[in-house]
Amino acid sequence: MPITTAVFDAYGTLFDVNAAAMQAAKDPAHADLAAVWPALARDWRRKQLEYSWLRAVADRHCDFWQVTQDGLDWALEAHGLTDPATRTRLLELYWELAPYPEVPAMLRTLRARGIATAILSNGSPDMLQVAVNSAQIGDLLDALVSVEDVGVFKPHARVYDLIGGHFGCAKDEVLFVSSNGWDAAGAAGYGFQTAWVNRAGEPVDRLYAKPHHLLSDLTTIPELL
Amino acid sequence: MPITTAVFDAYGTLFDVNAAAMQAAKDPAHADLAAVWPALARDWRRKQLEYSWLRAVADRHCDFWQVTQDGLDWALEAHGLTDPATRTRLLELYWELAPYPEVPAMLRTLRARGIATAILSNGSPDMLQVAVNSAQIGDLLDALVSVEDVGVFKPHARVYDLIGGHFGCAKDEVLFVSSNGWDAAGAAGYGFQTAWVNRAGEPVDRLYAKPHHLLSDLTTIPELL
Repeated sequence: MPITTAVFDAYGTLFDVNAAAMQAAKDPAHADLAAVWPALARDWRRKQLEYSWLRAVADRHCDFWQVTQDGLDWALEAHGLTDPATRTRLLELYWELAPYPEVPAMLRTLRARGIATAILSNGSPDMLQVAVNSAQIGDLLDALVSVEDVGVFKPHARVYDLIGGHFGCAKDEVLFVSSNGWDAAGAAGYGFQTAWVNRAGEPVDRLYAKPHHLLSDLTTIPELL
Repeated sequence: MPITTAVFDAYGTLFDVNAAAMQAAKDPAHADLAAVWPALARDWRRKQLEYSWLRAVADRHCDFWQVTQDGLDWALEAHGLTDPATRTRLLELYWELAPYPEVPAMLRTLRARGIATAILSNGSPDMLQVAVNSAQIGDLLDALVSVEDVGVFKPHARVYDLIGGHFGCAKDEVLFVSSNGWDAAGAAGYGFQTAWVNRAGEPVDRLYAKPHHLLSDLTTIPELL
């Protein structure tokens, strides 16, 4: 079946989740971040994801803004960072993460070819709207689809079901793109065509399905259609 | 309600999950491990747990021996370790992990006080039986309870339900002990009394419930009763 719909994960895929800590660390007001920001960003992201999975397993959903704050609080404590202004600044910056540079042109190419485009994200609707506005890519996306519509995080099948519900398309008409190996595997197991954007050069996750395409960034997405 | 039943997580709590990589690294036949074994052990454990959670979220259960191998395969590739003999040896050692030194005396004290004792673990029944035999603590445990009886990993409520099903006890008669902060939090959210054995001095996980007791090892468990 030819691809009619390109669906993108948001955090880590279109938006650089490390950008908040990197940017805050450049500010002399947050000198506490200078030495530790890469490790802090890594632990923040790790705990944010762990909490999303654990809440999904235990049926204890809350929105992604809550787990984003919870993950940061764990990471700040782990690195001995106690300045409340640093916490506030990191959370502010999470609402306006930089998109990867190739994102606008890639989305424009897809749209010019008549492909429907969407985000499917753990992020709450307000987080996604602000991020897309900040990145000025709102007019290149047909839909911002949030897990809040089903009240559980990825990789639960109810999340991936949202795309068929919104676009009325078959699973194998969808190209799902994520830089999170577990999300690409989850979508592949669900039945989407999938591309894993492996920016960090990590091994393929040993899960119940494997992504169909491995890419190093988003520039070659239009070639997959 | 007084505690009648002490339930222990196995991997990381009674048994040292880092012992396999540490022990293999001492063998000149596995010199490839010498420099990297602590990082390998950490990544093996991290991926093993991530895969257990992701499979629970996506309803794609397999047994813990499979995710143990899958996590190791990811970690070996991440650290560039390609010797099949190293993989084989690490997996062999995982079946006979050393117990923490305080375990036998602590269990003996509980039993002498008339407290029922059990393991509740992600591990498969055969993994648990071999580990307990190897550690010579089988006669100090009333039950080895595996998630395989419900076909989903922790922290799903169906797993914690197994204890009431086996012992016929109320939730608040159970002291659940884990060195995994997320497991202690999960059990606390379920309704058990809980102790988190925080050997590594990590921050408390920001989840939907908090453990009732924080310990640095297992020696003081009898004082909680």
